[in-house]
Amino acid sequence: MGVSSHVTVACSIFTPAPLTVSLSPSCSSSLSPLGLSLSDYGLAYLPLRTSIGLWTAFMCLVLVATDASSLVCYITRFTEEAFAALICIIFIYEALEKLVHLRDTFPINMHNDLDNLTFYRCQCSAPSNITSEITQRLNESGFTPDSVNWSELNKPMCSWFQGVFVGPACGLEGPYIPDVLFWSAILFFTTFFLSSFLKQFKTKRYFPTKVRSTISDFAVFLTIMIMVLVDYLVGIPSPKLNVPDRFEPTSKHRGWLMSPLGTNPTWTLLAAAIPALLCTILIFMDQQITAVIINRKEHKLKKGCGYHLDLLVVAVMLGVCSVMGLPWFVAATVLSITHVNSLKLESECSAPGEQPKFLGIREQRVTGLMIFVLMGLSVFMTSVLKFIPMPVLYGVFLYMGVSSLKGIQFFDRIKLFGMPAKHQPDLIYLRYVPLWKVHIFTIVQLTCLVLLWVIKASTAAVIFPMMVLALVFVRKLLDFCFTKRELSWLDDLMPESKKKKEDDKKKKAKEEAQRMLEADQDMDLRYEDGNLLSIPVKALKVSADPSVVNISDEMAKTAVWKAVAMNSDSAKVHKPCTSEEKAASIQINIEDEQGDKLVHNETSL
Amino acid sequence: MGVSSHVTVACSIFTPAPLTVSLSPSCSSSLSPLGLSLSDYGLAYLPLRTSIGLWTAFMCLVLVATDASSLVCYITRFTEEAFAALICIIFIYEALEKLVHLRDTFPINMHNDLDNLTFYRCQCSAPSNITSEITQRLNESGFTPDSVNWSELNKPMCSWFQGVFVGPACGLEGPYIPDVLFWSAILFFTTFFLSSFLKQFKTKRYFPTKVRSTISDFAVFLTIMIMVLVDYLVGIPSPKLNVPDRFEPTSKHRGWLMSPLGTNPTWTLLAAAIPALLCTILIFMDQQITAVIINRKEHKLKKGCGYHLDLLVVAVMLGVCSVMGLPWFVAATVLSITHVNSLKLESECSAPGEQPKFLGIREQRVTGLMIFVLMGLSVFMTSVLKFIPMPVLYGVFLYMGVSSLKGIQFFDRIKLFGMPAKHQPDLIYLRYVPLWKVHIFTIVQLTCLVLLWVIKASTAAVIFPMMVLALVFVRKLLDFCFTKRELSWLDDLMPESKKKKEDDKKKKAKEEAQRMLEADQDMDLRYEDGNLLSIPVKALKVSADPSVVNISDEMAKTAVWKAVAMNSDSAKVHKPCTSEEKAASIQINIEDEQGDKLVHNETSL
Repeated sequence: MGVSSHVTVACSIFTPAPLTVSLSPSCSSSLSPLGLSLSDYGLAYLPLRTSIGLWTAFMCLVLVATDASSLVCYITRFTEEAFAALICIIFIYEALEKLVHLRDTFPINMHNDLDNLTFYRCQCSAPSNITSEITQRLNESGFTPDSVNWSELNKPMCSWFQGVFVGPACGLEGPYIPDVLFWSAILFFTTFFLSSFLKQFKTKRYFPTKVRSTISDFAVFLTIMIMVLVDYLVGIPSPKLNVPDRFEPTSKHRGWLMSPLGTNPTWTLLAAAIPALLCTILIFMDQQITAVIINRKEHKLKKGCGYHLDLLVVAVMLGVCSVMGLPWFVAATVLSITHVNSLKLESECSAPGEQPKFLGIREQRVTGLMIFVLMGLSVFMTSVLKFIPMPVLYGVFLYMGVSSLKGIQFFDRIKLFGMPAKHQPDLIYLRYVPLWKVHIFTIVQLTCLVLLWVIKASTAAVIFPMMVLALVFVRKLLDFCFTKRELSWLDDLMPESKKKKEDDKKKKAKEEAQRMLEADQDMDLRYEDGNLLSIPVKALKVSADPSVVNISDEMAKTAVWKAVAMNSDSAKVHKPCTSEEKAASIQINIEDEQGDKLVHNETSL
Repeated sequence: MGVSSHVTVACSIFTPAPLTVSLSPSCSSSLSPLGLSLSDYGLAYLPLRTSIGLWTAFMCLVLVATDASSLVCYITRFTEEAFAALICIIFIYEALEKLVHLRDTFPINMHNDLDNLTFYRCQCSAPSNITSEITQRLNESGFTPDSVNWSELNKPMCSWFQGVFVGPACGLEGPYIPDVLFWSAILFFTTFFLSSFLKQFKTKRYFPTKVRSTISDFAVFLTIMIMVLVDYLVGIPSPKLNVPDRFEPTSKHRGWLMSPLGTNPTWTLLAAAIPALLCTILIFMDQQITAVIINRKEHKLKKGCGYHLDLLVVAVMLGVCSVMGLPWFVAATVLSITHVNSLKLESECSAPGEQPKFLGIREQRVTGLMIFVLMGLSVFMTSVLKFIPMPVLYGVFLYMGVSSLKGIQFFDRIKLFGMPAKHQPDLIYLRYVPLWKVHIFTIVQLTCLVLLWVIKASTAAVIFPMMVLALVFVRKLLDFCFTKRELSWLDDLMPESKKKKEDDKKKKAKEEAQRMLEADQDMDLRYEDGNLLSIPVKALKVSADPSVVNISDEMAKTAVWKAVAMNSDSAKVHKPCTSEEKAASIQINIEDEQGDKLVHNETSL
């Protein structure tokens, strides 16, 4: 699949980050913006590809050497999500497009007259003039133009001899193919809905947890098994997966090693640097955005990220793959996210109603290695794989695209457009940023996405990598339209739930402070020295966790104060707000926290 | 549809209860247990049907006169739900069965060889021996056995002349029909899922409430419209709805009035009383169970029920319909429930998060009348109705069956079998009845349902009405296995949510009482006389609503007591449980309430 499309950026096998995985269909089909028709210019494809690949590998090495990966700090949620959304939409679009394209492979007659089915046929007949090519082909097959009985040729023979299909059951390029198209549509949608249903089985109430989570974990695998069985039992000749059964170069006219020059003129060796620059941008962005998404704080990775090392391995493999004429590899966004999700470690909940807590990722290299070992072994499983109908695989792609959309905040914000204010979910940024500003942010992002899509689909596809890079600058421009605080809410990498919890905590602390102040009003306080007043402030900060703050504790504290006040002989203070200093100190304290936060955001940008 | 099946119990048009509605497909297909083949015995069908109908009408009139409708008090939730579940399952089963039967009407070739499609055809050819019947038919059509060119006959002509279909594209009884079967399946399932989705649109977050509730209310109508449009645009010749375009008797050999004797021997007039008895049981049960479901307390109907009047009208119409050879009518369960649900009146919620409250049913006769006026007018809409594909209607039937299952407690209990204890929902009967007893109750009900289904499907279908009646007796037998209290929880007609609310209220009151007692422990009480202690008990009963019971109120009360105790000079009481009398009084109070409840249940049985 890889080498056949012109300049394919397929997905990484060997990235050292333990989590990034990949599979070819996504990348090979989605990110081939350099699809030029080289034969028009009299240039050989593979040698040119090799020289571009070598240039790209060199540029990537330069990027590694110059510490360019540190620039990923400019890849914010804005860029990440626009890119991830694009990949998801490509998944969905291509799945649907492939289903629609089956209409060309399996044409149906939409307006059959059921009464006249006895007249329906589609026979082969002789072409109007028999060219020398046809004669040659006939001779090769042991026929002569006179001896051949055209009406007894089957479909591929008829096509090969350029015969004409005649009859009411004929489509444009051959007989109508009954049932296959609709059966494919049934397989496609059933796969999508069944895998979604099985995936959600975890949250159902039936069966013990073990059974449910097993079904949920193997949802896609189970779906494929079931659909293959159904397809086999029904027996409709749906299009099947076609796996080559030998490990060999796609063309017999070349060996395993490619020369970067080949039959091309010498100037191509240097000229290849220009497309290689675009390639480099694309590979760098694709690799790093995926790595940034995987290395998000919310994933609680312990082993640390390896942006430079990843890129180095990508660069080296790029060189090796180019020379051997193999597809190139970078980390695949959707599949890497899926891999991370499948490795999530959650606490076992013992108490009923307790939500399982996310503990971290099972960080290891076994799954990554095994995935690709199994993929490699798949060449020996041709006899099994040929039973898998293609529409089932398209359905799986649709499912992967749709299910990946769920985690993307950008889509949550798009949904806000159609939602009346009272139905809006309690999203953290809606608490702090006015709705119209959220909408503007979404519209900017949506415009970028549409532009990306248009460029990818149009003839300007060559500049697609530039546009991906431009995303970062568009995000920088937003600094002028939004305040830093607003952007910290809209474009922060911290996960929504965690932020909300912290916000709730802060609010609670504020309320608590307020309550303390009010409690003080009913009490007699003695200013022995300034230190006494700062005690509750500190206590407050330590016990900021709402579960620790406890009314009886607080009451006890005030009772102590009361006792202190009662025992003392100095003047009693009865002002409504007794502790101006304390209030100020709390105020400062909260601002400090926010100040910290902003600084933190700036460093994380 | 009605008259063609042998003894059809179709559904009521004219029941005076303002809410019972109906449509024929459900009844005519589901409840025809008396499907005997009369021609085997040399008896004419329609006269016998008329005499049975007249007998049934007479028996129903007797039932009205003898106040038999008062027996509906023995129709408990057990009977109701077994019957309603049967109807739902029939709906679902028949919808799926009809889809599967399309395989016979539209046979497909499951093992097409796509390469050899050029050889596929299915032509008509002469039968092996031309009988005199065939000759006659040929002559009628202007052919002779010699002049007819068999291979130029279309499918219906070939079938009429009993020609033989020859060729690789031939099924058992004619050519394979491409695409129609799978397209029907797509229409069927899309209709089901689309109408379910649109129905749930009310609870979605998008669009204003008005738009959402409109989409939800017209979910099925919108679905049919969309599917008809899609079917029209795709153009596959799917089976369409066939509506007669004139109002006339189905047979040309009879007029509008039928004689009860006709060509049958005189003894049939009397013998008809025996099947009529079974018919009466069935009509009585079907009519009254539906009426009981509709008249449930949870529907908050204000206009009162009319069991006797309903049955009278059913009896009279039965006579009229029998004499005119029209289908018989009783209330249709599923459709009546749907009608009631569509007329539900709910409070508008103003506060965010407030649940709309069920206020009652819009009780009137306009919708009922209009439904049947529109159904009557449908004979003038043949030109529009002929665009509706049958699979779309089957999909609607499936949707109706599945959506009706939701309200049936019986199915909630069946689901409990596959559910670990910790995931069980907080169902009221699970609070009071041990799980194994709930399971036994469910198993008994399930056995009844399976028996009903087996009898309905087998040749013993004649005794189906007896089995429906037997349900009532099975329920009576359960009185020996379960205590009255358990049955009151499992088989009470009060809706689940209301019962739960009352239970919560009672529990709260109990806790409150407990708290009061504990509060007393910290307090000094003086027994001036017994009356003082009974005061909180009464207050407790009045303020049983949890929203009224308020800790500060209670504290205030105890403060008063404290003050009383402090002012008094008598001995202080410090026992852990000071007010034995009061506790007893509360105990009795609660038991009284439960006692009332039991008595109430008994009267409602």
